[in-house]
Parts: sequence; structure tokens; C-alpha cells
Amino acid sequence: MAANFIVETSARHLHLCKEHLEILFGAGAELTPKKDLSQPGQFACAERVEVKGPKKSLPGVTVLGPLRPVTQVEISATDARAIGLNAPIRESGDIKGSAKCVIVGPCGEVEIEEGVIVAKRHIHLTPEDAKELGVNDKDIVSVKFDTADRSGVLGDVVCRVSPTFARAMHIDTDESNAIAANAQTMGVIV
Amino acid sequence: MAANFIVETSARHLHLCKEHLEILFGAGAELTPKKDLSQPGQFACAERVEVKGPKKSLPGVTVLGPLRPVTQVEISATDARAIGLNAPIRESGDIKGSAKCVIVGPCGEVEIEEGVIVAKRHIHLTPEDAKELGVNDKDIVSVKFDTADRSGVLGDVVCRVSPTFARAMHIDTDESNAIAANAQTMGVIV
Repeated sequence: MAANFIVETSARHLHLCKEHLEILFGAGAELTPKKDLSQPGQFACAERVEVKGPKKSLPGVTVLGPLRPVTQVEISATDARAIGLNAPIRESGDIKGSAKCVIVGPCGEVEIEEGVIVAKRHIHLTPEDAKELGVNDKDIVSVKFDTADRSGVLGDVVCRVSPTFARAMHIDTDESNAIAANAQTMGVIV
Repeated sequence: MAANFIVETSARHLHLCKEHLEILFGAGAELTPKKDLSQPGQFACAERVEVKGPKKSLPGVTVLGPLRPVTQVEISATDARAIGLNAPIRESGDIKGSAKCVIVGPCGEVEIEEGVIVAKRHIHLTPEDAKELGVNDKDIVSVKFDTADRSGVLGDVVCRVSPTFARAMHIDTDESNAIAANAQTMGVIV
């Protein structure tokens, strides 16, 4: 039996820099942690914003914390099409030339010239996990899912290895629906 | 090189029975063909309706023709969640106990007690195609896609064989986004 890992579905969300947080939520605003995420130190916040594309808006998009040096919006390809954006599939942090949008908060709005991406599917691993699974940081692998109605193998999955991570695969809502994933879905590298 | 086939993405749509067409679009209403689809005799219509779930609505959903004996609404799992429905993954026609919704047209509305499904991925094949691919009607297969950013293999794909079909695989928008399919994407049975 190969070593497996939990598969988590990332709903649309965004990360804010301090400057944008203060424009959107007011001078001196701070994030309000609401729920811890699987990755240590990461949390969902009470703060929500509207993400506006040329065609439509996504209301109530969750802000994740902590703050980051650069604002980044992660949406599904379904979302991108719905609001009229051509968002590229990218790893987190790789936003050069990605899509732009307007972010609207209760106290103001920000137009970002880039930063909207569709997240590339990935597995968070500690160095110990990576060793057990026989992979290295930045390896591209395929992962198999034995779900009830929509089994499959997703390729082009990036392995990300850091002692600060917890072992979990992250996919977006389109990918989650395409394999009919639920909270118990496990993946295995093939 | 194995025999392959084009992969087509089905956007959300619905099929209407005559009774519901007349409630939604008026007594004596007929479908207005707008665009032929790949399957012979099937067409997208100028008619559009709103599909209402308990949480939200999907506006401008395309009606496909010709009329059918029973109304059936096909949406993605993303759509189903957005409008608050728990729509099962089913083959077309297998709607017993599926989700309900309200359909709103310019002349009236209809509440259907069942008929909303997330379509099970499938391949339309003629008997000649099936022979070439080595499959039979109702076989469940896995299909591989070599797309640029999101390659993969989708399992639980139903083969549907009929002399009235044209060779094409149909997936929904979630599945299409999960494999980053485009108009040139081809699939191959593995």
C-alpha cells in the first residue's frame, strides 16, 4: 500500500498585503482569525471582500491570513470565466503577468494589476513526508483518487516540501468536483 | 497510437418536455434552433430560462432541442452548490430521486420535483467507433488527456453506443477546468 495523504479543497480566497488590508478595512485594521487551516500558522479570517472582474463580481471572498508581502487572489477557472478574467494556472507566489481585478472592502477598493491566479494543484509535505513518498521539492507527480462516482488521476501536481508544512494535497473546487472529492478523500502518488 | 476522440465541454443546459415549454414560453410555443451540436439532430436553442435553487439562481440557462418526454436540467457540481442543490451524478435519463428546482421562463414558471443532475461523463460512439475502440455500450472506462497544464486520467466514463451518435466525449465545465481542456483537446481510452 503506497503512502497516501488527505486531499483538501481550497475554495476561492485571497491573501492581502498590509497596505491593501488598510485600504479595504481602514487604517490600522488587523486580520481577525476565524478558523485555523491545515497548514501551520495559516488561518481563515472573518474579513471578506468582493472580487470584481470585467463581467461580474464574486461576493464574500474569504481573506486568509497571515498578511503577505504581495496580494494574491486564488479562484477556480469556473470563477475566472464567470467574472470575465483569463487567470493563468500558477503556483502560489508566481503572479507576474497574471490577471488583474478590483478588490472591494467595506472601507475602500484596490485595483491590482496582477495577482489573480488559478492555483496549480500541489502537495504540501514535510521533509520526512517527502522522503517517505520518494519525492523532492518541485517534483511534478500524478495522484490517484478512488472516489465513488468520479475516480481518476490528476497529473501536473507540484510537490512542495518544507518543515513548516503539514502533509496535505490542495486542489481547487473545479478539480474537487471533477473527482467528486469529499472530506475523506485520500490521494496516492502513482 | 490508440484511437482517440474529441473532448467537448457541456455547459449547463436543460431539456424540456412540451408541456413545460408551453408553460415557460406560452401556449403553442416552439423551440428556436440556434446552433447545431455535435450529436446529430441535437441543437442549442435561442430560448433561455432561469434555474432557481433554494439559495440562488442560474440566469440564462440554454435550452437544448429537440423536446424530450421529460424535462431534465444538467448543471455542474459547482453550479449545484452555488444554488443550494444536492444534485446527483447520473447518466442522462436516469433522474429518479434527483434534485428539484424551479424553472422560470418569460411566460411562467415550473417546479420540477426531480430532474436536476450532474451529468456522468460519457463517450458517444457509433457501433463502428465502439468496435475500433474495443468497447461496448455501457462499458465504464478511463480516459487520458495530455493537456498542457493539467494532464490527467478521468475514470468512471460511460461508453454510449448508438448508430445515431457522433464520436465525442462529453464532460462538464468542472471536469473541463480540472484538465484545462480546450477546443482541441483529445482523449484516449487507457
